[in-house]
Amino acid sequence: MTDGLPMRVTATGLPARVRIHEVGARDGLQNEKSVVPTEVKAEFIHRLAGAGLTTVEATSFVHPKWVPQLADAEALFPMLRDLGGEAHLPVLVPNARGLDRALALGARRIAVFGSATETFANRNLNRTVDESLAMFEPVVARARQDEVHVRGYLSMCFGDPWEGAVPVSQVVRVAKALVELGCDELSLGDTIGVATPGHVLALLTALNEAGVPTSAIGVHFHDTYGQALSNTLAALQHGVTTVDASAGGLGGCPYAKSATGNLATEDLVWMLDGLGIETGVDLGRLTATSAWMAERLGRPSPSRTVRALSHKES
Amino acid sequence: MTDGLPMRVTATGLPARVRIHEVGARDGLQNEKSVVPTEVKAEFIHRLAGAGLTTVEATSFVHPKWVPQLADAEALFPMLRDLGGEAHLPVLVPNARGLDRALALGARRIAVFGSATETFANRNLNRTVDESLAMFEPVVARARQDEVHVRGYLSMCFGDPWEGAVPVSQVVRVAKALVELGCDELSLGDTIGVATPGHVLALLTALNEAGVPTSAIGVHFHDTYGQALSNTLAALQHGVTTVDASAGGLGGCPYAKSATGNLATEDLVWMLDGLGIETGVDLGRLTATSAWMAERLGRPSPSRTVRALSHKES
Repeated sequence: MTDGLPMRVTATGLPARVRIHEVGARDGLQNEKSVVPTEVKAEFIHRLAGAGLTTVEATSFVHPKWVPQLADAEALFPMLRDLGGEAHLPVLVPNARGLDRALALGARRIAVFGSATETFANRNLNRTVDESLAMFEPVVARARQDEVHVRGYLSMCFGDPWEGAVPVSQVVRVAKALVELGCDELSLGDTIGVATPGHVLALLTALNEAGVPTSAIGVHFHDTYGQALSNTLAALQHGVTTVDASAGGLGGCPYAKSATGNLATEDLVWMLDGLGIETGVDLGRLTATSAWMAERLGRPSPSRTVRALSHKES
Repeated sequence: MTDGLPMRVTATGLPARVRIHEVGARDGLQNEKSVVPTEVKAEFIHRLAGAGLTTVEATSFVHPKWVPQLADAEALFPMLRDLGGEAHLPVLVPNARGLDRALALGARRIAVFGSATETFANRNLNRTVDESLAMFEPVVARARQDEVHVRGYLSMCFGDPWEGAVPVSQVVRVAKALVELGCDELSLGDTIGVATPGHVLALLTALNEAGVPTSAIGVHFHDTYGQALSNTLAALQHGVTTVDASAGGLGGCPYAKSATGNLATEDLVWMLDGLGIETGVDLGRLTATSAWMAERLGRPSPSRTVRALSHKES
């Protein structure tokens, strides 16, 4: 399909393997206005796992009123039971009530969703940053008691649409607090896509100096200004091995203006394939899955790779 | 306009200054089906120079039959005379006849357009690679006699739609030949956008080993698979300081399938601004110029930065 391209040429100082944390089914779909049928979501997740993605974020146990698109979490999650051996299926959990629902269904990986800025914490969680940390505390504690893996999302790590540039020290403080609560892993979100490689390296270095090891850090870049992949390269050069991406580039953020465009998993896999970095993902099957989902959503994928490869096949 | 974003954070091992070789007015426009009025082209180039771009490729002295969009080179070039002190205005010159036309109008920088692969040389130039080098030889020699600066474009440096992956050694052979003909500068084109950072570094290293210094090398990436900016970052880390880009992401290549999407100058400037690398370009004025041109062309700019910033202003 790709004529033997990209040509594989490794580069020094990069990891041998990267784990892609696929967010298309949750982060990607949550802003879709027309509700996607539960069966379609289940098939999407099965196809993503079938393409070789080993971590597929499945849904969110947020209050159905907040995110109507994901109100079917109770119906969806049991439909994924057969994937247990194939892929991790983390779910978003905002609070103790959400955790109850997730645990009742047998979720083994959860994620809490924090903010590095007060404005976004207020708009997204209706709390201060410290109040949100207090809300997460019993959630994380109980999850860990049950040996459930906990990811801590941290939004607005590089810029905030209301506050502008976000100081590195401010991000480090909240990141450290999430680790101290017991998060196994952080996901540093560039929610509005404004980061550049020097900023990425500065934040990673500051986190290391504050005692957060690179192995506990994932990166979550947005392509709002076309910067997601170069920022990812900088993060890989620093040693990061967990990268969030969204199949077909689905998604954005409803609470932040200009926050369009998750990094497309296909564009990421193209680069990693070229660099000879193992992901386990079959780019052809993944592209076919995103093209299939784009048809269901009634509009073309924003992923350049999906468009280029689909064009080639037609 | 950008709320103090991107935040400027430098990174070690990168150049302090980058020269952007702006190709929007030539490479970008040449594939537009409806002919852009000469006055609009002249205003576009004036606006690009006004935004701080110091090298603006202006047009092509190819036979009018081949590229009807640029058949007005004789009318356009004199309209740019007032820019002499502000910006270099290189022009594409395919052969001796084209050189005559360019020199008669006072062009001080020319470019020849070579191919690293036989198939593309045949399709684009109707010659073998060696025949095309023989055609360039007297052109480059006479230009240098007149102290005219010569750039050698080299297409298909990473992959070719018919031949697949292109061996580094093959590119080095043609690149060396262009330098030996007298080219002052090379532009390594990833015409179909398939390169990844390790491949970029391998080619740059091989060229250095063959005696071509990094200072004589520019890079020309396409965003077909979303890889242009991460490849640019890798090239900057190697020491490259000349980067080709197209305002608003205009352009592609009519002779190569899937060859869409020059790297958008705005996406590049966003990254360079964030890294504190000087370009002299005012991102706000550049974005306004691309938005203006997109209106004239009747469709939105493919540059993510142009879209994000235009959206913000509206």
